[in-house]
Amino acid sequence: MATKVLIFSPNGQEACRYGELLHAAIDDAEFTVASTAEEALPAIGEAEVLLGWKFPAGLLARAKALCWIHKVSAGVEDVVFDPDLPRSVHLTRSEGVAIAPRMIEYVLCAIYMTTQQFPRAMRQQQRKLWSSYFVDKAEGKIVGVAGVGDIGSVIARALAKNGMRVLGWRRSRTAGVAGIERIFVGHEELKPFVSACDFVVSVLPTTAETKGVFSTSVFAAMKSHAVFINVGRGASVDENALADAVTRGVIGGAVLDVFCEEPLPATSPLWGLQRVIITPHVSGPVVPEDVVGLFIDNFRRYRAGERLHREIDLQRGY
Amino acid sequence: MATKVLIFSPNGQEACRYGELLHAAIDDAEFTVASTAEEALPAIGEAEVLLGWKFPAGLLARAKALCWIHKVSAGVEDVVFDPDLPRSVHLTRSEGVAIAPRMIEYVLCAIYMTTQQFPRAMRQQQRKLWSSYFVDKAEGKIVGVAGVGDIGSVIARALAKNGMRVLGWRRSRTAGVAGIERIFVGHEELKPFVSACDFVVSVLPTTAETKGVFSTSVFAAMKSHAVFINVGRGASVDENALADAVTRGVIGGAVLDVFCEEPLPATSPLWGLQRVIITPHVSGPVVPEDVVGLFIDNFRRYRAGERLHREIDLQRGY
Repeated sequence: MATKVLIFSPNGQEACRYGELLHAAIDDAEFTVASTAEEALPAIGEAEVLLGWKFPAGLLARAKALCWIHKVSAGVEDVVFDPDLPRSVHLTRSEGVAIAPRMIEYVLCAIYMTTQQFPRAMRQQQRKLWSSYFVDKAEGKIVGVAGVGDIGSVIARALAKNGMRVLGWRRSRTAGVAGIERIFVGHEELKPFVSACDFVVSVLPTTAETKGVFSTSVFAAMKSHAVFINVGRGASVDENALADAVTRGVIGGAVLDVFCEEPLPATSPLWGLQRVIITPHVSGPVVPEDVVGLFIDNFRRYRAGERLHREIDLQRGY
Repeated sequence: MATKVLIFSPNGQEACRYGELLHAAIDDAEFTVASTAEEALPAIGEAEVLLGWKFPAGLLARAKALCWIHKVSAGVEDVVFDPDLPRSVHLTRSEGVAIAPRMIEYVLCAIYMTTQQFPRAMRQQQRKLWSSYFVDKAEGKIVGVAGVGDIGSVIARALAKNGMRVLGWRRSRTAGVAGIERIFVGHEELKPFVSACDFVVSVLPTTAETKGVFSTSVFAAMKSHAVFINVGRGASVDENALADAVTRGVIGGAVLDVFCEEPLPATSPLWGLQRVIITPHVSGPVVPEDVVGLFIDNFRRYRAGERLHREIDLQRGY
């Protein structure tokens, strides 16, 4: 019997693309493609598998037959923290190697824009002002990657390949990671970690443990020229503390793609800071062609009753 | 007998730094450090060797004993085209490997800023506007490097290392260069070269042959989304043709560090174009510590009557 799979994305074109790619690769499934709550709600009751992201409110409450959710993005906090999540469900997500190559380029760009002072050039250009300045070299700079999971490890390797010295920070002790000189572990090593860095790149997910870890005292431990780059999740940052640290010159600046609340409210002090660059959550876009491979492989495993790859531990949240 | 060496830079601090570094490494020379015409003119008559850049007008006309000029920068057109240059003088310049590592980061930044749409994000930020857009991947894009000399080759390798496909263009046929898929040769292959590229990076020096090679018809041969990046010399570009090509959407945009006239005049149409980024000739800064090594080695050769490394062919101009 065919497995009933509901595909959901609020972007109709994207939802259709997942449908096309999966239909071409999988025979023993019956797909329903939805991009609105009206389309999704009638189908969720019978769906055994749900694939997609940005699920509409109330969807999971009506899931009666659901055994497996595959989130096509890297972040899963919305599903993990959904009170209606059936606790017996299997939850998987896209692997970092499918998403990280696009995030790498955001991070490299953020670092080079800082050392090359491109924002300064663009401000000068608005005034037709020709005024020289010294361009520093990113090669040899110390970049700390907070969150050395599958995405962080890939980013770390790319930074090392371009001549930067890379440090890592993570929750628990682990084997070494290629390209990372030293991995700091746990909350007690967070300040020593950030204090050694010229750039701090957060790839941290939202979990109970990462909430607000970038606090006033952590920013105070950073070098005054250090730049904070966030491509993980906004919840790991105390945004008022960050705005204050930049304003008072405690740190050198920030390049931020993710925020506690998205869209970032117009009232946020971050918008107006010259040393802060804000992008609207565009790093690491999830491209159907990049990420369907894992699902297709897992679908075969699911049908065969085998263990799924990249399953989330619902207790830890990642 | 000690060789009389005149060190000149219009930046006094930089001139002193060259003096310190060379004094520490060379015994058999007598150094004069100058940063103004008033300081330099009395010393040039007896100087056998001149090291530095941005020499004051009329300096070479008073050189009576000069045998060797070492320009610390990569560009030498000001000296080559100086009518007072003693034709028997040896002219050397800094090697690309000493300067290119800093230029690489400018070029990578220019490419990533384009694919990541950072200028758009910064314009949106000024209006506190949160509006998403798709971020393209630079990996896999085709980047053409015009001018595959010592600097261009190093830049090409860095681009290839970051997953870009690299094409090259140069004056004459040559051996292959690591990281470059194909090298186009001569003026007749310039249009096929640019038409294949998503980005065209010019590293061309100013010579009689490179003047205005980036003309209306060459821009017309480029892809309409292609971005032109210039870290070579402004003289290789017809700037009115470039401004016109960007304005009319013939090409996608430009990131320019060098111009026909520097500072770029306030009347230039380039200043006001949204798809053009202007930087004030800051890529590839010449850092004394990076570049004195070659001079120190050449000085020993000079004293021993040996052939100098990196000597310029005054006919070709590079």
